[in-house]
Amino acid sequence: NFEDINKLEQGQEILKYGFPDRGPELMYYTNHVLAYDRAKRTPVWVAEHLTAETLKGYASRKNEKFLPDPRIPEMFSAQNSDYQGSGWSRGHMSPAGNHKISKEAMKDSFFLSNIVPQNYENNAGFWNRLEMYCRDLTKNFQSVRIISGPLVMPYEEEGKKFIKYQIIGNSEVAVPTHLYKIIVAERKSQPVALGVFIIPNEPLDFSHHLTKYQITLPQLESRTGINFVPKLDLSKTVNLCDVHSCQLIEKGKFELYFIGRKLESANTLSRLEHVWKELEEKKLKPDKDLIDLYEKRHKEILMEEKRK
Amino acid sequence: NFEDINKLEQGQEILKYGFPDRGPELMYYTNHVLAYDRAKRTPVWVAEHLTAETLKGYASRKNEKFLPDPRIPEMFSAQNSDYQGSGWSRGHMSPAGNHKISKEAMKDSFFLSNIVPQNYENNAGFWNRLEMYCRDLTKNFQSVRIISGPLVMPYEEEGKKFIKYQIIGNSEVAVPTHLYKIIVAERKSQPVALGVFIIPNEPLDFSHHLTKYQITLPQLESRTGINFVPKLDLSKTVNLCDVHSCQLIEKGKFELYFIGRKLESANTLSRLEHVWKELEEKKLKPDKDLIDLYEKRHKEILMEEKRK
Ligand SMILES: [Mg+2]
Ligand SMILES: [Mg+2]
Repeated sequence: NFEDINKLEQGQEILKYGFPDRGPELMYYTNHVLAYDRAKRTPVWVAEHLTAETLKGYASRKNEKFLPDPRIPEMFSAQNSDYQGSGWSRGHMSPAGNHKISKEAMKDSFFLSNIVPQNYENNAGFWNRLEMYCRDLTKNFQSVRIISGPLVMPYEEEGKKFIKYQIIGNSEVAVPTHLYKIIVAERKSQPVALGVFIIPNEPLDFSHHLTKYQITLPQLESRTGINFVPKLDLSKTVNLCDVHSCQLIEKGKFELYFIGRKLESANTLSRLEHVWKELEEKKLKPDKDLIDLYEKRHKEILMEEKRK
Repeated sequence: NFEDINKLEQGQEILKYGFPDRGPELMYYTNHVLAYDRAKRTPVWVAEHLTAETLKGYASRKNEKFLPDPRIPEMFSAQNSDYQGSGWSRGHMSPAGNHKISKEAMKDSFFLSNIVPQNYENNAGFWNRLEMYCRDLTKNFQSVRIISGPLVMPYEEEGKKFIKYQIIGNSEVAVPTHLYKIIVAERKSQPVALGVFIIPNEPLDFSHHLTKYQITLPQLESRTGINFVPKLDLSKTVNLCDVHSCQLIEKGKFELYFIGRKLESANTLSRLEHVWKELEEKKLKPDKDLIDLYEKRHKEILMEEKRK
């Protein structure tokens, strides 16, 4: 209407030197999408679409290096040196484990635009188990969409509320106090299942259960100032934890998983035996997959040694 | 190119439920433009264009009330109740004094989208004097463009850096630790003059000079993650404080200004005399304008009393 045109013209005059630019609203990568916070040098949110199909593939994280994102201007980018010696690990928001489908997808996930300063144990432990749970959901749901990101939560001090977070390195990368994960899971002819969780960025042992960290989407939206899924009709969704376990992989199985990872990366017989002995030390019973993996690696290493 | 289209398609699939929305990049008002931070419930930046012309007019702030901005969804908006009893004043980023040109412009400036929690003395004192300085610049420059906003600055604690700020009210409005002001002043056939300042959100007496708070634009841009004036070629600008005083109004004159404001709002003879007596108490010598103002108000009140 007329009033708005008037405001627009006045606006152009005010913004003669261009409008203050906070960077692109959306950044598309091979297998994820994100928005970047140029002040905090971390992503605001990172979105992914998981299906049994997209999780296939053999791209490995082994020879990938974390790199500053070439699409982020240097003055707003984190650097590896910001993380080194900081006491915080480089935590993927869209996990490497979701990007086996191609080398490109895997490489993109190692750009620092997808990384936040994360407690080491939380990264390898609870958050890793939550990422595994999200992948497992594709066994029961055709489509799983995930949005993950960092958060700074308030605390009380002498009757007042504050937000406080550490910043690390020369680039002053913001360390989140919590991380959030939104899970939207779909299966034919059933209402969309929605689960929203806020996880403290600290070590969380096996006594903590996922449901303890569940909140509603509006609570997260009010906290972050973001409407995450504007086209999803919340009234037509059901609680993910009512239609699925919301149980993360338990201790024994998780340790078997780690041993499996070590078997995969063992490249000498002695290393292979050393890892296998860990099973006995930890009194863990290997399952069928783990035994097959052990025998397969055993054969492969023997063959490699013959060829040398 | 092909690779991008591929990423775009994959992106659409990921963002089936729409992309996470952080609200409009730009919001136009009658006489200012801003971007709003839905998480902090305060503006990110507020831009204005001052000239001798735009500063004219008689719209008064007296009968204006602070109001939540109807264009901001309630869940992301500050409320007056957040400020009441919080110990922080409602601080205009684009000051009321710049909006005399129309009732509409004045009203827009009282929306809480243009307001941040500000120390009372800072608001009425140093920051007020800085706003007066900006208006005075229009006497020497044809065009003065200003961008103002809140900031949270880091501090050191046991060898680590932190950012800490208070949040007030049910809406958890973020209290900035500092405020910034960017001044871009133009006059014919001279390079554009640029001044950028970061002011602590605390009482600052007359011993503090403006130049002490001056920083470079890149320093502010790195801090905020914002390129404020993308179309301004910095290499062709000069330091405002090299071509103008950068001196804020001094104590005596500032007190005369306040007395002038009280004379304007006095509506009985006794009130007028009471204010005028303040001059003697503070041993202040009234200038010509103040004497004229006093005599004008004296006549007006007499006439009003006759009419009653
Ligand atoms: Mg991780
Ligand atoms: Mg003010």
